This record gives sequence, C-alpha cells and structure tokens, in this order.
Amino acid sequence: MPSQQSLRKLAVLAVHSGLGLIPGQDIILSADLSDLELARLVAEEAYKAGARAVIPFYGDEQTALIRYAHGSDEAIGYANRWLPEAIAGALNAGTGYLRISSANPSLLKDIEPDKIARSSKAAALASKPMSEAITGSATNWCIIPAASPAWAKHVYPGKPVDEAVEKLWAAIFHITRSDQADPVAAWSAHCDTVRHHMDRLNAARYSAIRFRGPGTDLTVGLADGHVWEGVQMQAKNGALCSPNIPTEEVFTMPHCDRVDGTVSSTKPLSLRGQIVAGIKVIFEEGKITKAAATEGINVLEKLLDTDEGARRLGEIALVPHSSPISQTGLTFYNTLFDENAACHIALGQSYESTMAGYADLTPGERKLRGSNESMIHVDWMIGSDAVDVDGLSADGVSTPIMRGCEWVAGS
Amino acid sequence: MPSQQSLRKLAVLAVHSGLGLIPGQDIILSADLSDLELARLVAEEAYKAGARAVIPFYGDEQTALIRYAHGSDEAIGYANRWLPEAIAGALNAGTGYLRISSANPSLLKDIEPDKIARSSKAAALASKPMSEAITGSATNWCIIPAASPAWAKHVYPGKPVDEAVEKLWAAIFHITRSDQADPVAAWSAHCDTVRHHMDRLNAARYSAIRFRGPGTDLTVGLADGHVWEGVQMQAKNGALCSPNIPTEEVFTMPHCDRVDGTVSSTKPLSLRGQIVAGIKVIFEEGKITKAAATEGINVLEKLLDTDEGARRLGEIALVPHSSPISQTGLTFYNTLFDENAACHIALGQSYESTMAGYADLTPGERKLRGSNESMIHVDWMIGSDAVDVDGLSADGVSTPIMRGCEWVAGS
Repeated sequence: MPSQQSLRKLAVLAVHSGLGLIPGQDIILSADLSDLELARLVAEEAYKAGARAVIPFYGDEQTALIRYAHGSDEAIGYANRWLPEAIAGALNAGTGYLRISSANPSLLKDIEPDKIARSSKAAALASKPMSEAITGSATNWCIIPAASPAWAKHVYPGKPVDEAVEKLWAAIFHITRSDQADPVAAWSAHCDTVRHHMDRLNAARYSAIRFRGPGTDLTVGLADGHVWEGVQMQAKNGALCSPNIPTEEVFTMPHCDRVDGTVSSTKPLSLRGQIVAGIKVIFEEGKITKAAATEGINVLEKLLDTDEGARRLGEIALVPHSSPISQTGLTFYNTLFDENAACHIALGQSYESTMAGYADLTPGERKLRGSNESMIHVDWMIGSDAVDVDGLSADGVSTPIMRGCEWVAGS
Repeated sequence: MPSQQSLRKLAVLAVHSGLGLIPGQDIILSADLSDLELARLVAEEAYKAGARAVIPFYGDEQTALIRYAHGSDEAIGYANRWLPEAIAGALNAGTGYLRISSANPSLLKDIEPDKIARSSKAAALASKPMSEAITGSATNWCIIPAASPAWAKHVYPGKPVDEAVEKLWAAIFHITRSDQADPVAAWSAHCDTVRHHMDRLNAARYSAIRFRGPGTDLTVGLADGHVWEGVQMQAKNGALCSPNIPTEEVFTMPHCDRVDGTVSSTKPLSLRGQIVAGIKVIFEEGKITKAAATEGINVLEKLLDTDEGARRLGEIALVPHSSPISQTGLTFYNTLFDENAACHIALGQSYESTMAGYADLTPGERKLRGSNESMIHVDWMIGSDAVDVDGLSADGVSTPIMRGCEWVAGS
C-alpha cells in the first residue's frame, strides 16, 4: 500500500498545480478501477477546492479485453460517437479534465495487430472532438500517474508484484515531488526552472533543430511562428494548468513538411497495448518514407497508416538527461514518464498552443506554416546521453543547445 | 464467492430474457464497482449475442459519499445535465440499457435529509430526459441484482459478511431462476403464468381496485384506457424485454385524481440511502393529504415535496404473496426485490405503456385520463397475507381478485 500521506499530496498536487481547478468548476475524472484509492482522494480534494461537480468515468481494462475477445468484426471496428461528443461539448464549455494513468503497457499483447488498428482508428475518429478540445487548450486538463499492479510488473519485472507496486509508488512520489514537504511549492519552483529554458528558446527563434547521435541525424524544421511551451498551459477557460505531472519537457511545433534525416528510438514505447522497440525511420520532406523496428513493427506500420498526418511530426520536445525520471534508469513503458526522460518527437496531431495566433489563421494558413493534422498523437523517445542537439538559424548558423542531452550553459 | 456457473447463467438471462438484446445493438451497462465480476460476464454475453458496443458506466458509492462529505452547498444542489442528456439521446436512438443493482440501502444514513433532498431533486431534474426515455419505452432496458457486501449485511444482519454475501447470491440465483438448468426457458414459463393474470385483468376493465387490510382501506381508481402490464415490455425499438429481473408483478396506471382512503406500508423501504418504515398515509381525491412514518419521516416528507406529482400515484401493482421473493420471508431493502414480494403502489411518474394510445394523446388528454407526471417514481409495499384486493366495476360491483394477496381462482 502506498503512503496515505504521499497519496493525498499527489491528489492535492493534481487538483491545484495540475488542473489549476477554478472554484465552481465541473471536472471530469477519468480513472481505471485499479486507481480508485487515488481517484477518491482526487475527488475529495477537488470538492474541497470548490469543484461544483466531479464527474467520474471509471474504466476497467478487463472489460476492454472482453470486447477484443468476444466482439464481432462489426464491434471491433466501431466506436460510439455520442459519448465523446458529449464530453467534448463539456470540455469546450470549460469542464476540467483530470485523468489518472496506470495502463498495463502490454494489455493487448495477445490481440492481433489488425484488430487493434481497426479498433484504435475507430476510437480515434470517434474521440476526435475530445482530442481537439484537449489539443486546442479549450479547458484545463491534467494527467497524473498511479501505480497499478499490471504496470508495476513491467517496470520492475524481477520483483514480486507487491514490492513492484510499492517501488513504483515511491518512484511516482519522488518524480512528481509528492514526497516533498510542500509539493505545490516544489512544483512551482520546477516550473520556474523549465520556463527559463523555454524563454531562451523562444528568444532564439531557431529555424530548425538538429539531433545527432548513434543511428540519428535528424533535422527538424520548426513551424513558422512556433512557440516553445512547457510545464504550464493557459487554457481558454482562464485556468493555468500543468497538463502533465510529471513533466520535464520544453516542446514546440515542427514544420510538417521540413523534417529530414534518420532517427532511432532510445527507449521502447507502449503503443496500443503492445511494446514497440528499436524503431529506426527515415524522414524525407516531413514524411516517414521508411520504418523499421526490432519489436512490434506491425503495430508501428498500422499506426503510420492511420491517416495522412500519421507519418508526419506534430511535436518535438527537449528534456535534459538529468531529469529525475531519467535518473531512475528505468523504462516505465508509459509515455507520461518515458517522454520526460528523454528528448522526443511525436507523430500526428500538433498542439494549437505551439503556433502563435493559431486561432486567427485559416486551416490553409496553419498548414502552410507547418501544423499537422491527424487522429493520432504518439510520442517516442530519441534522446540519450549520446545525443547532441543544435539550433539552426534561418541562415544556417548552428548553436549548441544540448550536449549529451544536457542543457549547454546559457542556452 | 458466488458460483461461477450461476453467475454466468444470470448474465445470460440478463442479456437474452432481460434485455432481449437485438444483434448489432449498442448497450449501456451501468454497474457499481462491487458488481464488476457480474458486469464483465454481462459484457461478454452481450458481445457473444452480437452487441455492437457495450458502453460501461461504472459507479462507486464511496465517490458519491465524498461529494456529500466535501461538496459545497452549490455542489450538493447541482447535477450536470449534459451526461444524462447524452445518454437519453442514445436511449431514444435505440441503445439498450442494462443496470446492475446492488446499492447499499443505507449508504446515506449519516447525511442530513435536507442535503439528500436537494441533491436528489437536482439529480432527478437533470436525469429527466433519461427517465422519460425509460418510462416511455423508447428502448429495451433491464435491471438485475448483484450481491454487494453492503447490501448483504442489511438482508442478513446477524451473519458474518462473507456468509451474508453468499446467502444473498443464493437467494438471487433462486429468485431469478439462475439456479435452474435453463434459466431462459424457466423465465419464459414464468412469463406465461404472469401473462395469464394480466390478460384476465385487462379483460375485466375494472374502474377501481380496493385494498383492505390492517391499517389499509384504499380505493385506487384506474386511469381511463389503463392497460395492465407485466414481466415483458415491447420497446419502441422493436425489442421484447423484461425490464426487471426478478419480477412477479402485474401493474397498471392509477387515475391520479381518483385515489381515496388510508394505506399502510407492509415493508420498510430504502429511499435515497435511508430506511423509511411504518408509513401510513391518507389520500383524498388522488393526493396524499396526511403522511406519517415510524422511521424516516423526514426523508418521506422531503420526497412528497419534490413536485406536484410526488403526492399522487403513478402505478399500482399486484403480486401474489406466494411469490418466491415473499417466500424467503426476508426484507431485501431493494425495490427490485421487495416490490415483487407484495402488492404495491408507486408515487410519482406513471408509465406511458400502461395507458392505451398514450403517444397519440395531448398532455392535457393524458392528464384528464389520469396519468401523473413527476420527477420521482418510488414504489412501496402495501400487500401482505392479511390484505384483500377487489376489483370495482364502473357501476360499483365488487369482484374478489386476491384474498390474503393470493390470486382468487379464475381471476
């Protein structure tokens, strides 16, 4: 069992620093049954902070598996639209969104990739209004972790499950600062540090970012009018939130047509309930033209075929190798953690907030400036202590940003 | 732990006899976390029967309590509307609705009645589109029971909780016929028996029903064009369902203005998470003009003040005293069971399907014929082996229907 005190601190952090709950606000609380203890504390802290309603959506991974095992072909390729549409309506009207993430990284390991792809595509299509509300910063939202047994077993494969869960909780409390005396204050100090690097990158106005390392030489053009973001987000409903806890990254919008070179993943990722590892892809004029993986290539290929934008980038992010997550030396098989352990890129949908004046541009103008549209948004890790990062100016001048994925002094 | 075999039989019964699932249909599955084992089996059987989607809504009683404990005044008096509206939209479009019922009968025993009343009223108002879809037979729906520890402790107060749960499961399996070799066939035979009495009552065209027993002399006028219903319902989406499993009752629509006399409850009921017992009320011209109770009078009074229709009847139902539920001699503190142990009446909203040609009538015509409108629909038991039931014709002729709440031969 996790420490009740730390669990409550994590709940407080989630409501205040994560969601930045506005008193009188409704929030949706999405969690798996295995996270119930934390979910109840979050509900309690949200009501204490003045929430008008906490609307719980409690999921169950086993019910999801039953669908794969017993659903007809029609069922697998179908996702209802009325529920995500209703949720999107609530988000667009300012309802906050707090998700507890504890997914079993290999839940779907025994399911045929084709079934997973058809199902994921239907779900992504159906939930597009929801993801647009999220990526469009319509409301304050936040994802926080919880240590489920199924997840803990992946992170600590050699340990008995109870011990693995306990260790994962300890890691979560440390990484989220919930083990500190005042996690809200600690998070605020962390925000200041990240903002320092963010401000410098925004001032530099690089035209492209170049990654070099083993198996990687990738130049990622940045979108015209790109904005570096990190740790906090000002939502359209007025709330200031930290959408991810933990988060260490500074990220922005790549130009969807200006990405060239080769890039290799530095950590495995959990994709649609399966593990994909040893990814190596080639980009030409923004698009992946060749993809390989040592594990899970089928899932990756299905992902790339989702739609036109699935082969292009929607995000690049810089994360120092000395981040607390990276320092654990663990692979978490959970994007919330692994993406904050290393520099990464994301295939698919770009975030509105990372392009200046996005709302006032026509779809054509946005695209011309480099934004990408897709039903997917999948991060994967390309940083390590052997990877260097440079900023390229429009006239080709190269400035070191990171060496061995540590910030270069002054950058 | 309940017998896996009986649990699966109950799931099969719920999907086939209860819901009457139409292949290709979507269904909403509403359950509390404590019912997860049965919920998963229901999902499995629904997919096997050709469901296109099983959309789970898993609730948690503790999260509900947290709201009462920590919610602001604003929070207690508020219920979000977008979610029940979205669900109502789905129901009206033919999505089936299956609910697993295992509520703790005294969940809210420590909450102030005023808080409960304000909260229930807001919830009832918000969920009106949902209850209209249900009472209007828009789609096939069904409620089935599951033995939660909190519920079992009420039914078997002297027993250790594990034993109580086991005994409650055994009672559920027996009463629902899930302990029989072919529960679907057994249910079908049961439907035939109930339909026999229903057909006779429909042929008799009584003007009123009179209940006489200790503390009870009540004449309930029947709505013009009333229809006796029972065990099965033909939904507007074409499905034939048994909305309640178990069910033993034959029920129809009282005339909202023609109920007179005194009536005493014969079993306690669980109302809004509190126990109400020893109810005695006086009706005059359809309306409750005086109400007393030996326990929970506050909750009852708040209920009656919900709206204009809360003091009038929406349903009367006849149940033989020899029903399997009654024979257990237990009080279940769960309407699904207790209403099928004895003749009962329900305050509040009437059911469309119990008035002929309802859909073609104007609201004014419906009211004139006796239908009742309210945000509530609360059943309470007035039958026992000491209660007699007679049918009164329009010209005052009295015909015995039940003696000691057993069907009189030929009726």
